[in-house]
Amino acid sequence: MSTLGKMLMPNFTALVTLLAVILYFWLGFRVGQARATFAIKAPATTGNPDFERVFRVQMNTLEWMPVFLPALWLAAVYVSDVGAALLGVVWIAGRVLYMRGYSEAAEKRETGFFVQAIATGLLWLAALVGVVASMLHA
Amino acid sequence: MSTLGKMLMPNFTALVTLLAVILYFWLGFRVGQARATFAIKAPATTGNPDFERVFRVQMNTLEWMPVFLPALWLAAVYVSDVGAALLGVVWIAGRVLYMRGYSEAAEKRETGFFVQAIATGLLWLAALVGVVASMLHA
Amino acid sequence: MSTLGKMLMPNFTALVTLLAVILYFWLGFRVGQARATFAIKAPATTGNPDFERVFRVQMNTLEWMPVFLPALWLAAVYVSDVGAALLGVVWIAGRVLYMRGYSEAAEKRETGFFVQAIATGLLWLAALVGVVASMLHA
Repeated sequence: MSTLGKMLMPNFTALVTLLAVILYFWLGFRVGQARATFAIKAPATTGNPDFERVFRVQMNTLEWMPVFLPALWLAAVYVSDVGAALLGVVWIAGRVLYMRGYSEAAEKRETGFFVQAIATGLLWLAALVGVVASMLHA
Repeated sequence: MSTLGKMLMPNFTALVTLLAVILYFWLGFRVGQARATFAIKAPATTGNPDFERVFRVQMNTLEWMPVFLPALWLAAVYVSDVGAALLGVVWIAGRVLYMRGYSEAAEKRETGFFVQAIATGLLWLAALVGVVASMLHA
Repeated sequence: MSTLGKMLMPNFTALVTLLAVILYFWLGFRVGQARATFAIKAPATTGNPDFERVFRVQMNTLEWMPVFLPALWLAAVYVSDVGAALLGVVWIAGRVLYMRGYSEAAEKRETGFFVQAIATGLLWLAALVGVVASMLHA
């Protein structure tokens, strides 16, 4: 892309996106490992609660991606690159907590879930305020 | 982001994206509620057809997100912000119908599904025409 | 969007995105067909290994979308539109191989999986290098 195009990009948010994506990738990798550990052969995704919790960590993160990524990017573009990126880092931390908790027991997933949900909600709200402000000023 | 960057954004499409995302978020919230109502403890996602239909409403919407969001944004950028946003509103309406129908019975999911599928298809076609036209004029 | 906005878009990557999205759409369509063929009524997604493999082809592709699409677009914007689009074509080819292999037997899914994983990994790395270079030069 042109130099102008690159200059318009929110660099910090782009970097945090790549980190969030590699974390998510790793959650999927763990499912492959858990298939081997708990002898759950593809295409099955059920049959052992220990496997299912590892699988659900990835699935739940997948389920949140279409909320997190659009909210992150609209907040970055309409409000603040650095601000959005910082909330993106909180989201990543929440997801790591969630992974560690849920992998041990279903009840231990709640703290991490709460952290990433708050970060996502703040990003969504910031994006909404930014978009509406931009429409009113146009 | 710079003022120039914001000026280039399709504002109506950004707003509709945030609405689509909050609808989708709510579909996930309903799964949490249905877990309680039908006593399906995490990590299980099967065991009661009433729960499974609520779960599948969210999952099917998730499955369509990677088609809907790219088509919406490419149509907005290459063709028309307002036009894309209006089809985005039709998609949201179709998804609400789908949710209400499928929650009652699997057979009642078809009207809403059809509505959101048509909206997505039109967005995809508009984006394709827009991208190809832009390449030919470059 | 303005003429300037369109001029800044990576056209080849936009086109490949629409192709990737229609392939993914088709994988979902095949699940609907497999429901009929193997008599798996919604909302069930299990009960017949032949159905489950077709379902898992779509699900695994869905699972990779939040890695593939952000990596593709950040590589296109920060490094090269044509380069990203070519790796996007490799990803599509890998996904077609994966679909054909996995639909026959779970063991035959590996070649296509590997091809699309390499393409995604290269896109992610290119994006990372591009973003970091852009931050250092800013």
